[in-house]
Amino acid sequence: MIYLREKRDLLAIGHAALDYIIQVKEFPQPNSSTAINNMFTFYGGAAANVAVVGSSLGLKTSLVSAVGGDFQGSDYQKQLQKLDINTQDMIVVENDKTPTAFVLTDENHDQIFYFYWGAAEKFKESEAPQNAIKSVRAVHLATGDPQFNLKCGKVARSEDKLISFDPGQDLHMYSRQDLERVLKLCDILFGNHHEIKRILKIINMDIDALREYGPSIVVKTMGINGSFIYSQEETKVEAIVREPTDPTGAGDSYRAGFLKAYLQGESLEKCGKFASAVASFVVEVEGCQTNVPNLEMVKVRMQEI
Amino acid sequence: MIYLREKRDLLAIGHAALDYIIQVKEFPQPNSSTAINNMFTFYGGAAANVAVVGSSLGLKTSLVSAVGGDFQGSDYQKQLQKLDINTQDMIVVENDKTPTAFVLTDENHDQIFYFYWGAAEKFKESEAPQNAIKSVRAVHLATGDPQFNLKCGKVARSEDKLISFDPGQDLHMYSRQDLERVLKLCDILFGNHHEIKRILKIINMDIDALREYGPSIVVKTMGINGSFIYSQEETKVEAIVREPTDPTGAGDSYRAGFLKAYLQGESLEKCGKFASAVASFVVEVEGCQTNVPNLEMVKVRMQEI
Repeated sequence: MIYLREKRDLLAIGHAALDYIIQVKEFPQPNSSTAINNMFTFYGGAAANVAVVGSSLGLKTSLVSAVGGDFQGSDYQKQLQKLDINTQDMIVVENDKTPTAFVLTDENHDQIFYFYWGAAEKFKESEAPQNAIKSVRAVHLATGDPQFNLKCGKVARSEDKLISFDPGQDLHMYSRQDLERVLKLCDILFGNHHEIKRILKIINMDIDALREYGPSIVVKTMGINGSFIYSQEETKVEAIVREPTDPTGAGDSYRAGFLKAYLQGESLEKCGKFASAVASFVVEVEGCQTNVPNLEMVKVRMQEI
Repeated sequence: MIYLREKRDLLAIGHAALDYIIQVKEFPQPNSSTAINNMFTFYGGAAANVAVVGSSLGLKTSLVSAVGGDFQGSDYQKQLQKLDINTQDMIVVENDKTPTAFVLTDENHDQIFYFYWGAAEKFKESEAPQNAIKSVRAVHLATGDPQFNLKCGKVARSEDKLISFDPGQDLHMYSRQDLERVLKLCDILFGNHHEIKRILKIINMDIDALREYGPSIVVKTMGINGSFIYSQEETKVEAIVREPTDPTGAGDSYRAGFLKAYLQGESLEKCGKFASAVASFVVEVEGCQTNVPNLEMVKVRMQEI
């Protein structure tokens, strides 16, 4: 019997996480306590962010993350299901928790970050989700586990999928060799300006050499300063600037927007503009998966560029 | 139509909370991050602890806490239901969260505490749960809100219920007047040695004067040094000392044990010994509602005294 999977557009691989945003008057000294003024929880994790925004833009997305037993039946899972994101290949670690980030902010806007890796520790010993990869057009490798990303990238390459890669804040977790391996097999590299600079330094190449070596498209995002898209030519795209309440999630939503337009066959410039317009919504409200626009909303805002 | 409630033994009033126990290598400086080595979540809150332990010991318990919309359908709620704890009068604040405590511990065993009051802010504007109070034999006023405790205490007094009171770490939240009012109407006061000392100082009385004024029984717990029960006479009860993995929850489980024995008509000495035996289980394992013994287990261990 052959089990036929529904074809999907985009598989995002990497973290789904819970973000706790905790506001305090001041950070307490050891062996003292403080009241929390405000606490918000948000759904996050770079791969989940891309899947959610992609889905809202009309892509059929799938998500492979490592989550805890707490995820099953959770509101987060229900939210992903409501968005018709295929989660059947998620790695569920019954006796651990979904990765969790605690971001504490005091009244001076200083921040302290605590990250709980939790279930995501199990990425490295997990097999690449062959069927999930086979059933999509494109695979996006987000923050998660370098080894797992590499495994998934190899399968995706052998299946001739479009592969995008965004190591993000995990860049330091990649050995030079692993980084080179993933770069070699991907088609599109995403990074902010710090990350792209650092990648070029690690592999000791310039953009052109990198594009020869691996990704034929390199997308460098620079927040309110817009983005550069490097391919045969160099395209600068302006950001659509909104009062940025909360820049977290901007990068992931840009990536989802870019991939949506790219998979639709748009020009790179159009991809960048579309991506900028998508990101401009997400920064308006706190959280990475909040104020996510649909296709119509993005089209209206794109006319501003 | 008259709605007849099932009679219950004990109503615990005050916090139900979620406790996050977070272990890190060291506390990060502002604007830096650290990985969490281990993270455990436990069910807690003093009132919920008493209800849970009481239920395990065979009391029919009810619980009135202020919880968030996240509580409904949560594993915590299911756990309380499984223990047959009546939660029908819980104060559910849809658009806020269940009170949450974050306890961060570094490798030097230094700790930082963050408390999120959340839904419990709504205690003060809530009415006393008349029907819940009427349907029980005894009411335990735990940490929560001083005004709400006072309101509930007044109803319980007018209904001639047995009232126990344990202000715990909330002691500083009571004005002298409110403290005096609650003390005046309660029958049993619980506190650790620091708290009893502080109460006597605030109201400027000694134990005998306090017992004349309000609670005829004062129970002072002293961790591994046992407890003192002050009534017409003074009774010292030894602790049953186990390797204390985690002393949190010891006090609440002692109170639940004491009330179980007291409602059964046992002598005060027996109440104290029973309570000590109950607490000796709870300290063996991390968490306030973990390793909770049943009646048989307590009876076996009591033979050690």
